[in-house]
Amino acid sequence: MTFDTQSAQAGAWSARLRSAVADRGRLCVGIDPHPALLDAWGLPDSVDGLARFTDTCVEAFGADAAIVKPQVAFFEAYGAAGYSILERALAALREAGALVLADAKRGDIGSTMAAYAKAWLGPRAPLWSDAVTISPYLGFGALAPALDLAASGGRGVFVLARTSNPEGGSLQTASTHAGEGVSVAQSIVDAAADRNAENPDTVGLVIGATGDHGLDLSNFSGPILAPGVGAQGATVDDLARIFAESRTLLLPNISRGILRAGPSVSALRSEVRRQCEDVERALA
Amino acid sequence: MTFDTQSAQAGAWSARLRSAVADRGRLCVGIDPHPALLDAWGLPDSVDGLARFTDTCVEAFGADAAIVKPQVAFFEAYGAAGYSILERALAALREAGALVLADAKRGDIGSTMAAYAKAWLGPRAPLWSDAVTISPYLGFGALAPALDLAASGGRGVFVLARTSNPEGGSLQTASTHAGEGVSVAQSIVDAAADRNAENPDTVGLVIGATGDHGLDLSNFSGPILAPGVGAQGATVDDLARIFAESRTLLLPNISRGILRAGPSVSALRSEVRRQCEDVERALA
Repeated sequence: MTFDTQSAQAGAWSARLRSAVADRGRLCVGIDPHPALLDAWGLPDSVDGLARFTDTCVEAFGADAAIVKPQVAFFEAYGAAGYSILERALAALREAGALVLADAKRGDIGSTMAAYAKAWLGPRAPLWSDAVTISPYLGFGALAPALDLAASGGRGVFVLARTSNPEGGSLQTASTHAGEGVSVAQSIVDAAADRNAENPDTVGLVIGATGDHGLDLSNFSGPILAPGVGAQGATVDDLARIFAESRTLLLPNISRGILRAGPSVSALRSEVRRQCEDVERALA
Repeated sequence: MTFDTQSAQAGAWSARLRSAVADRGRLCVGIDPHPALLDAWGLPDSVDGLARFTDTCVEAFGADAAIVKPQVAFFEAYGAAGYSILERALAALREAGALVLADAKRGDIGSTMAAYAKAWLGPRAPLWSDAVTISPYLGFGALAPALDLAASGGRGVFVLARTSNPEGGSLQTASTHAGEGVSVAQSIVDAAADRNAENPDTVGLVIGATGDHGLDLSNFSGPILAPGVGAQGATVDDLARIFAESRTLLLPNISRGILRAGPSVSALRSEVRRQCEDVERALA
């Protein structure tokens, strides 16, 4: 693949993402079929319950949400049978016009990282997604196979930077030896900004909305996935405050705050619309 | 489950691990069906090729190796069909008497981390394994659901600490604010040692054998998985030097250095025996 084709494909991801957000709003809606939610929806904690939960989410979100984010762990807990359900959901969501972001948080090195990239971003992979979350404990540089495949194939990645859970602070705020005040999380932001200079928007970041992130985002203009709104305690007004200085494409993620409106498809759709309006109003 | 049962189960893992190593040697043999190896074995890069590669590995390693470590990414690349093959391999390896360590490097928070724990360590999960590798970018504390399930169910986890790839250094050697000289990797070692005081051997570490790790392992007595021998450039004599000061149960991992002897089952078996003897001699 030539450089020109790569750039064209990378541009295709940026255009698709920004067009989806312009058409449908910037909300990223999660599919989190965890046992307590299955129970609340009157479904068994089984492959059948998982399938019915997922089908309902596809019907409720596919035609309205810009981005739908299945949480892979809940499908993996059912092994191959769970992955079959996930494969069908990813295809149906794309068919309905939503972008699919697989929340997998994969991270490895070398040809193993290349296999994860192929699994989630490869054009012939059963789990083909528009974007995938990845985790940088093995170093930002080790994620290159996923970044390269995203760039050449017109897809995106979202790299964990500063997460919304309290246990993440010690590691993510540790000081690297790259220079005064460069935390681990800041080093991820800086590396992502560097990559995006060549392929805009290809590398997104995950930055939690539950606390002040303490990051300098002035050089980063790509997408930021911001979990933590709703069930984890942040409000949409927090988003406006926390990301006030940034020029990024902010994508708030709400999962359980919407899912608890189920299992009625119409109630789920209303809740997506309501929360989407809240987000757009707060960030206007 | 009562505390006494938990302790009994955790003791069961320690006993099973140490008994397997006493009987079969301390080598952890990888199953890494990456495209170049499939090609070298005359197999297509397809579900059928993956199945035949995996069946050969199960036949070659199940009866001789103490620990067999499938690299999950190469199965995930084939989606649900790949996971079906992995499920069958995990069951067949256990049936043959090997311990299975799923190299998945999963890491998340809250109920999502609990779902990953259930996926790999849950007693009724299709991907049930004896142990799983996990990744601490979201904080060591966020991994608690996997550590708890391992302790209560008599299984193990291996947490990434200091890895063998050059890109990992910047993050893993960053200085936490916990005190003078406490790097991210050291903080993982210390947290693992704390957890093992209650449940010996439940929390293992992944520490690469390709460089001096710079860690103080004096308080850690659990298992250490040491990748990097063979294909990544380290020798068994490096192991003896790198881990000279430690009282840990060192488990060297060799994957491609053995797999390139295939596809002959007898050649693979000979290579396992030869490498196992090399390791035992170097660490005697």
